[in-house]
Amino acid sequence: MIPGKDERLILITNDDGIYAAGLKTLLEVMEEFGKVVLVSTTESMSGMSQAMTVKTPIRVKLLDENERHRIYTCSGTPTDSVKLAVNQLLERIPDWVVSGINHGANASVSVLYSGTMAAALEGCLYGISSVGFSLNNFSGTADFSPCRKYVRIVMNKLAEEPLPAGICLNINIPSLPENEIKGIRICRQARGNWKEEFEKRKDPMGKTYYWLTGSFQNHEPDSSDTDEWALAKGYVSIVPVSVDMTAHSYIDRLMERFGE
Amino acid sequence: MIPGKDERLILITNDDGIYAAGLKTLLEVMEEFGKVVLVSTTESMSGMSQAMTVKTPIRVKLLDENERHRIYTCSGTPTDSVKLAVNQLLERIPDWVVSGINHGANASVSVLYSGTMAAALEGCLYGISSVGFSLNNFSGTADFSPCRKYVRIVMNKLAEEPLPAGICLNINIPSLPENEIKGIRICRQARGNWKEEFEKRKDPMGKTYYWLTGSFQNHEPDSSDTDEWALAKGYVSIVPVSVDMTAHSYIDRLMERFGE
Repeated sequence: MIPGKDERLILITNDDGIYAAGLKTLLEVMEEFGKVVLVSTTESMSGMSQAMTVKTPIRVKLLDENERHRIYTCSGTPTDSVKLAVNQLLERIPDWVVSGINHGANASVSVLYSGTMAAALEGCLYGISSVGFSLNNFSGTADFSPCRKYVRIVMNKLAEEPLPAGICLNINIPSLPENEIKGIRICRQARGNWKEEFEKRKDPMGKTYYWLTGSFQNHEPDSSDTDEWALAKGYVSIVPVSVDMTAHSYIDRLMERFGE
Repeated sequence: MIPGKDERLILITNDDGIYAAGLKTLLEVMEEFGKVVLVSTTESMSGMSQAMTVKTPIRVKLLDENERHRIYTCSGTPTDSVKLAVNQLLERIPDWVVSGINHGANASVSVLYSGTMAAALEGCLYGISSVGFSLNNFSGTADFSPCRKYVRIVMNKLAEEPLPAGICLNINIPSLPENEIKGIRICRQARGNWKEEFEKRKDPMGKTYYWLTGSFQNHEPDSSDTDEWALAKGYVSIVPVSVDMTAHSYIDRLMERFGE
């Protein structure tokens, strides 16, 4: 059964912390779809991937509550936030987990590092229809207003029919005025990797330390079925993401190699 | 070209910290295969997934160097350790990245949370043949000696033929005496999830905090082609893991749903 707006319970989270403009935009749009419980990380947690907090305790703070939403901060990671919300803070398993809207794209292999997508994957592991949204703009003052239309389109599709078990959506939105966004493309994850360039510095004591920096290398810039291509060309990219990481295509060959 | 023992350069890492017994076992076995550079996290980093350190600088310390190995600690995550090794510490791209041997299994969806497997995925993203090994025993005093045989078998296969681009191996070893391990099974990742049970406590100031605990729920305990089944039955499980998380099987249906 698909719940109507009045009964729908929506968990939203992000990895840019409670004050992020993208989170505020997402909260406003999601209130059109149901009762929202927001659990954000207290601080920015970019690049935290599916990390869990196991060595320190987790703190939670209720910041705001009214008839449309409850807002919490969680001292842990995005993954912790979803786990804690589902197990301790929500009255029942939510109908949707919606993460974002991230400041910065999470296309291609960034899905592996992204806290935004980790939260969506976490929801997916609980059997909840889950989506991560990202805007291709790292700036704290990015304009999220063109995202509203696409968040609405996607969530209306999910309101019609939930996602299959084990699959969530990774949605990247170009940083363009609304009238320059060309529409939506269903894509696969582009092949690529991050090329790191560590900055090596000396501290005041003369000891070496490193800052991680890097730039993304697209291994297939001309493949028009990829998320990176769609985003570069001004489309919203939607990649269905599986929690099953098995390389099924290689199982038979591995069996041959190991003589099974 | 496949390098011989004399020219082979092997990066090893783990997520249990520099003093872990599983890392020591791995170092000893890998020295049979080539020159080893070990970069371990300074502290235990279990459950860190593919997290990167972007808000603090990273420190590295050379602990030991002889003709067979160089040993470093890295203040960051397992992913940082691989990135830093490949970009700053190694004389060239290594032939293999080998991670582990983890204290505790990383079967099924644990691949998403595992620092051990994140390091292997990171190597794979650089185009390096990469493997993560885990023993199904969390104890710091677990007996890793039965693992040696299986590490040798797997790495001899890799010496014959590297892994395909974008695929690494997730290898879990049962915690049994060597003569009770039944052999190797090539598997897929079992469907399941972690069911969390947060422990809610009060601190001395009367404020609430939570500890994350949980237990794994296997959604398909009778499927004999899964890693969880193999491990439970006394086999070493090998799952080929893809860095491409796209749910390819759902792309056509999504295109229909979004009217492409």
